[in-house]
Amino acid sequence: MSKGITSRKEDYSQWYNELVSKADLAEHSAVRGCMVIKPYGYAIWEKMQAALDKKFKDTGHSNAYFPLFIPKSFFTKEASHVEGFAKECAVVTHYRLKDDGTGNIVVDEDAKLEEELIVRPTSETIIWNTYRGWIESYRDLPILVNQWANVVRWEMRTRLFLRTAEFLWQEGHTAHATAEEAIAETEQMLDVYADFAENWMAVPVVKGKKTETERFAGALDTYCIEALMQDGKALQAGTSHFLGQNFAKAFDVKFTSKEGKQEYVWATSWGVSTRLMGALIMAHSDDAGLVLPPKLAPIQVVIVPIYKTDEERAEIVELVDQVVAECKQKDITVKFDDRDSYRPGFKFAEWELKGVPLRITIGARDLKNGLVELARRDNQSKESVSKEGLSQRIEILLDEIQHAIYEKALKFRTDNITLVNSYDEFKEVLEGKGGFISAHWDGTAETEKRIKEETKATIRCIPLDNKLEEGQCILTGKPSTQRVLFARAY
Amino acid sequence: MSKGITSRKEDYSQWYNELVSKADLAEHSAVRGCMVIKPYGYAIWEKMQAALDKKFKDTGHSNAYFPLFIPKSFFTKEASHVEGFAKECAVVTHYRLKDDGTGNIVVDEDAKLEEELIVRPTSETIIWNTYRGWIESYRDLPILVNQWANVVRWEMRTRLFLRTAEFLWQEGHTAHATAEEAIAETEQMLDVYADFAENWMAVPVVKGKKTETERFAGALDTYCIEALMQDGKALQAGTSHFLGQNFAKAFDVKFTSKEGKQEYVWATSWGVSTRLMGALIMAHSDDAGLVLPPKLAPIQVVIVPIYKTDEERAEIVELVDQVVAECKQKDITVKFDDRDSYRPGFKFAEWELKGVPLRITIGARDLKNGLVELARRDNQSKESVSKEGLSQRIEILLDEIQHAIYEKALKFRTDNITLVNSYDEFKEVLEGKGGFISAHWDGTAETEKRIKEETKATIRCIPLDNKLEEGQCILTGKPSTQRVLFARAY
Repeated sequence: MSKGITSRKEDYSQWYNELVSKADLAEHSAVRGCMVIKPYGYAIWEKMQAALDKKFKDTGHSNAYFPLFIPKSFFTKEASHVEGFAKECAVVTHYRLKDDGTGNIVVDEDAKLEEELIVRPTSETIIWNTYRGWIESYRDLPILVNQWANVVRWEMRTRLFLRTAEFLWQEGHTAHATAEEAIAETEQMLDVYADFAENWMAVPVVKGKKTETERFAGALDTYCIEALMQDGKALQAGTSHFLGQNFAKAFDVKFTSKEGKQEYVWATSWGVSTRLMGALIMAHSDDAGLVLPPKLAPIQVVIVPIYKTDEERAEIVELVDQVVAECKQKDITVKFDDRDSYRPGFKFAEWELKGVPLRITIGARDLKNGLVELARRDNQSKESVSKEGLSQRIEILLDEIQHAIYEKALKFRTDNITLVNSYDEFKEVLEGKGGFISAHWDGTAETEKRIKEETKATIRCIPLDNKLEEGQCILTGKPSTQRVLFARAY
Repeated sequence: MSKGITSRKEDYSQWYNELVSKADLAEHSAVRGCMVIKPYGYAIWEKMQAALDKKFKDTGHSNAYFPLFIPKSFFTKEASHVEGFAKECAVVTHYRLKDDGTGNIVVDEDAKLEEELIVRPTSETIIWNTYRGWIESYRDLPILVNQWANVVRWEMRTRLFLRTAEFLWQEGHTAHATAEEAIAETEQMLDVYADFAENWMAVPVVKGKKTETERFAGALDTYCIEALMQDGKALQAGTSHFLGQNFAKAFDVKFTSKEGKQEYVWATSWGVSTRLMGALIMAHSDDAGLVLPPKLAPIQVVIVPIYKTDEERAEIVELVDQVVAECKQKDITVKFDDRDSYRPGFKFAEWELKGVPLRITIGARDLKNGLVELARRDNQSKESVSKEGLSQRIEILLDEIQHAIYEKALKFRTDNITLVNSYDEFKEVLEGKGGFISAHWDGTAETEKRIKEETKATIRCIPLDNKLEEGQCILTGKPSTQRVLFARAY
């Protein structure tokens, strides 16, 4: 295996592409914009899914499944929604192929659909059409449902995990009797996402609200978590929307309240996607390859043996069997790399590239003295430790690594939030180190748009924990009551 | 809740439809042929997925994800494959909608795809096109990959779970260096499916091979498990295909063997789908509703309290808390139905309809004597037991129920395999009790076809454990060496 990945400094974008490919995470498929998620990459996604799914269930949600296809007429019922998605949707128009008589397989024009079907880019419309049948009275509320599914948005410029025509995600869709309850749900799910990002992915995030311009098509309010990548660009890692009564009105979903009145139902939706894989990769990895937080690593510990004789090998295997058994008790995943067709140096490089958090080298010579070597992936540090109590040491180290990766990313994020008070300063930081820029803004869509056009920076969010302070918009000089976070973003 | 479902005797098909709807398992969506799987139904499917996924991983497989769309040209590369699926596939032809200027949203003809995309009905073609890039030498083999996904087959006559235009499934796709290894994999996965059907779903199955006519489009051999429903119709519950080198040849996937020769790769594929939900429902349920085997029941035990005073309630809750905690230790899912807006009788009927295996009624009066009532869903038997050691009794009973449900289904299946030696007898049994009919067949597709046309019965399989015996084809009288299983089927 030749590592040979471009360094981040040289070309960050190229580094990312090569890393995704060489670490066996994903690849482009023969279908434009669609990716193949390879087993190693998918194993990470499965760990993400399992952790998130547990959080959803712990907060009272159930999973369900709704159709892949959405009739065009549904799609157009909520005006801003269709405007947001119409330009990038895959359309099914026929339901059969046929042989044209010369052996060519062509679309059968006799099998044209009466109404075109849209491959779901998101499922609010089909789900709210369904909820109409589920909701009669306040007793049927709340509905707390989540769906794990594939969705399609016909992106023209795609990048593996970050922006693909088809991607995997979960979308929660809840229905409530009051606006307050729906807003509380929206905020709760934002907290769930932030907790997952920070405590599982080890990626610190800013919780905030989107400006009107950046809201989800059909939402009254879009909450988001925003992460910072090593190249100083921001990445929206998850969103939670308060949809008001927009979809209930579009699909005529009413309920009888406790007071006996007919009212429209209040809605939320919230989602994270395989995009999180991109965030995970870009937040922590280095020029030698992936760096995975132990909680999401498919392989948490790899053991590489070094020996010459069969006797030496037998001694090593004896220790390995014991360590693997002890680790299994602790739910730690250990791989014993006993391939004899590869040298240790090759194996070191391979597992480094694949981001295994902890490597144990068991050399026959050291073992005679009761010692083995532990090497951390995150900071490359090594220690020689006694074989006694090895699994305890592993457990402690994995925990330390999880925290260290988070702390490192947090320090980077903290170092890269810059307060600026003028447009010149703003542009200087943006062209320099990038990162989040905290600046005053006059609150208008016009200013937001002009800044975006001139600098490619967008308002990532209005942080939820913002302090109010008087100031002047960096572009227009108009009065402002709080700073917002700008950045160039993925 | 009014149960009011049609009895099986009255109209089996109607009974099924009502049961699926009233037990909150699934419903028809607004999209022709596509279903909505409701939370309670999906919870059962999730339990199936978890059990199957563990079995796949225990046999060395990893999950991955491949594109939803397949270019038309791929689809047509394996001749029998396209013939099998071309007539029922959803075709994407455009990637954008637009406003036509009058406010109508229409397909944008400027956004026509150069090549149509087929929504996958199964993924052999896109996967084997991908495997070409993954395989160079024998060292890259075997590839043991599974995918959980949605697929679309444009069925004209649909029924919830049993036959829907979109369904959920898993599809395993493996690549091997030799035919022997691929056949061993095909057989191994059939055993995995049979084990799951019998030990989790409590549905006995016959393992067998399909006749040439009934094979998967592109397979050299299709293995299957066949189950028997209560109305005497068979249901194919899972298939495992030996694909030979068909897809390797169609997509030019070769490897360098140990001997240094270039050879085509050997393939298998295998799948089960949400159809299993239909099998589960139809195999065990009765006129009062669902009967679920404990291993797949989302709620394994429901507790219904009966009390008048707050003091009585408090005593019950104390016991419930203890039982729930003890059951959690044993991984038993208990629901305490403490809704005070419904009477006990209503709750009994509801949980009966939803197939909860065990109901505990805790009445304040009995509790004074230290007693509670246990009611089994499967055979309606009740017992009054001491509150001491309740969780131990629950554990034993759930195990007994799991076995009892299987034994009942096995007895039904055994009673409904009929050996016949003439075509008259064959038709008589078919019109009578139905079930599997074991009969001699001359081995030709013509005979198979004629029997199907005349009786609607198909050859479900040639059982793997078949004894060879001389006989005469029931239709043509030609010599035959073994019996095969006929049935009308779902």
